[in-house]
Amino acid sequence: MNILIAPDSFKDCLSAMEVAAALGRGIQKILPDASCSLLPLADGGEGTVEAVIDATDGKRREVLVLDPLMREVNSFYGITGDGGTAVIEMAAASGIELLVPEERDPWLTSTFGTGQLIRDALDQGVKKILLGIGGSATNDGGSGMAQALGVVFRGKQGTMEVRGGGALSEVEQIHLDGLDPRLAAVEIIVACDVDNPLTGPRGASVVYGPQKGADGAMVKKLDRNLLHFAELIRDQLGKEVNTLAGAGAAGGLGAGLVAFLDASLTLGFDMVAGLVGLEEKVREADLVLTGEGKMDAQTRFGKTPFGVAQLARKHGKFVIAVAGTLDEDAGELYEAGFDLLMPIQEKPGDLETSLKNAEQLLERTGERLARLLRMKI
Amino acid sequence: MNILIAPDSFKDCLSAMEVAAALGRGIQKILPDASCSLLPLADGGEGTVEAVIDATDGKRREVLVLDPLMREVNSFYGITGDGGTAVIEMAAASGIELLVPEERDPWLTSTFGTGQLIRDALDQGVKKILLGIGGSATNDGGSGMAQALGVVFRGKQGTMEVRGGGALSEVEQIHLDGLDPRLAAVEIIVACDVDNPLTGPRGASVVYGPQKGADGAMVKKLDRNLLHFAELIRDQLGKEVNTLAGAGAAGGLGAGLVAFLDASLTLGFDMVAGLVGLEEKVREADLVLTGEGKMDAQTRFGKTPFGVAQLARKHGKFVIAVAGTLDEDAGELYEAGFDLLMPIQEKPGDLETSLKNAEQLLERTGERLARLLRMKI
Repeated sequence: MNILIAPDSFKDCLSAMEVAAALGRGIQKILPDASCSLLPLADGGEGTVEAVIDATDGKRREVLVLDPLMREVNSFYGITGDGGTAVIEMAAASGIELLVPEERDPWLTSTFGTGQLIRDALDQGVKKILLGIGGSATNDGGSGMAQALGVVFRGKQGTMEVRGGGALSEVEQIHLDGLDPRLAAVEIIVACDVDNPLTGPRGASVVYGPQKGADGAMVKKLDRNLLHFAELIRDQLGKEVNTLAGAGAAGGLGAGLVAFLDASLTLGFDMVAGLVGLEEKVREADLVLTGEGKMDAQTRFGKTPFGVAQLARKHGKFVIAVAGTLDEDAGELYEAGFDLLMPIQEKPGDLETSLKNAEQLLERTGERLARLLRMKI
Repeated sequence: MNILIAPDSFKDCLSAMEVAAALGRGIQKILPDASCSLLPLADGGEGTVEAVIDATDGKRREVLVLDPLMREVNSFYGITGDGGTAVIEMAAASGIELLVPEERDPWLTSTFGTGQLIRDALDQGVKKILLGIGGSATNDGGSGMAQALGVVFRGKQGTMEVRGGGALSEVEQIHLDGLDPRLAAVEIIVACDVDNPLTGPRGASVVYGPQKGADGAMVKKLDRNLLHFAELIRDQLGKEVNTLAGAGAAGGLGAGLVAFLDASLTLGFDMVAGLVGLEEKVREADLVLTGEGKMDAQTRFGKTPFGVAQLARKHGKFVIAVAGTLDEDAGELYEAGFDLLMPIQEKPGDLETSLKNAEQLLERTGERLARLLRMKI
């Protein structure tokens, strides 16, 4: 029996690889002849770099870059085992978690560090860059990222350093002449799990500005600034990014990546699945296991286990999802293609204890599934 | 597919029938053609009457009797659907839960009410009486029960009313002439899950006296009194009950039942299993489900799920146990014959919430098992 084990990470608990390995150990304890193929997955958010490194036997690269407030910070990204692809989480350089709450200020925060990570990946000679853009601290339309890669902005006083969404109103000209020429030969794919446009009532500033530290007045100005930036891009670069679905992701970094780097936007799961060859592995499997720390009816919307279930269904394979928490409404997922939802808990108890024991609980869940599979009734 | 669902109750939560029914509903939601046979079980302790009534379509009989301190109390027992067998829990008339803590005093507490329940069962014309004797408040060697059925004790001052373990020292003669003659035609089987002898360091008074309210000095006297009582029984009735395994159960009620009523002692599970025809039903099943609120390594010692697992193994059937709590050491049960231990919890959370949702959790566990069973890989 060929079992593909392709889970997401269990947030704040275990990496996707640790989850897969624990399930695999449990299964092989009961079915030693079963072939378990471990394929850690992610949805473009936190844990994506680790999952891709684990899935492709890649390596982690540590880089010193500038954080959202232009201070040095240790960051990282991953390179696949074949050396051809870099996987970057923008939050590792420009994420909101890098700032204490009182520092959060989208007027000033910049995606410059994300641009530095991209540049370092170019230095490593990759041919493809996958970029997960959740969890940003910024609202700068990707202007910081662009500058780190050679784009020049000019205002009334000439060349200007744009730092944060507040300064965008002063930009009058965009010059791409200095853009890193290596970018022309590199494919850039962005994992973008929101479909907000750049500006307006559903735009980056209005929807996500407040959680990054903007008050009502600042939100209005940031929105106006991004609109101004989009108009410059349209007029001077000939690209319409203001209404593009996903352009508003990560404070407009989505728009900037499309405008300056010709990036394509895709779903995070699709990006990761493509990279690790998920569909081919589903096709070879007799049974597919997936899972996530918490599953509920929302899991239907772009989360990893749902993506795995869709592929499994497409190829007529049974698919079982394991979860640390299965919410009341998780039953709706059965209609979405899961053959079984399997919680790992063994007794009433607090979350902390469960997180601490998660690895054992997963191993015993794998054991339990294997025991059922070997019952021939 | 023929599925036998034979669980114990989930203590402080659901009766055995409710557990079985919830599992059955979940299974039939997924496998509507499966035949689910519901067989509530018990181990002779709390819930035994209810389980046997449910399993045999019997009836519950409410009776006014005397509690351990000879006050009127509403009690009950069960009669099987065929009217032939009474099932009595001694705790319903002589249990420690009928007394508030400050009333607990084995010097005075009597099993008289248990004798009244037996007499009422005789009035109903049963041919067999099953008696579960856990949870007693008494240490009277069954003297109260015996008097309720016509046994007469005499001391220095002639006929005496023996009330409690304290008075046993004054008994000099035992007269069985007045014993209810109907008892001769009735088989009495006692569920006895402890194997303590009547007296000595492992006897009723030393081991269980303290939890019934006796201090060290009283324990010594109670033990001496029971020894005196056993000597009278040996000398005048020709029965050796002092060293009999199980004689010390329920404050020596085990000894009294053997001495005065010719009862046979057996394990609670065996008593219930025999009554409801468990083995025959296991033989007819393709799969056996059992379970209990909490399962751990101790489940091997006489508990219902273990008894079910042994019968299933004997007949080569798969057996799955479900539990609200599966303790860390429960894995040892796999060596004891279970094919699968399946917890019902779906997320971290407190015991109270879990108890409240137990019926739904069980139903969804049944559903989960059925989903796995229908996967043909």
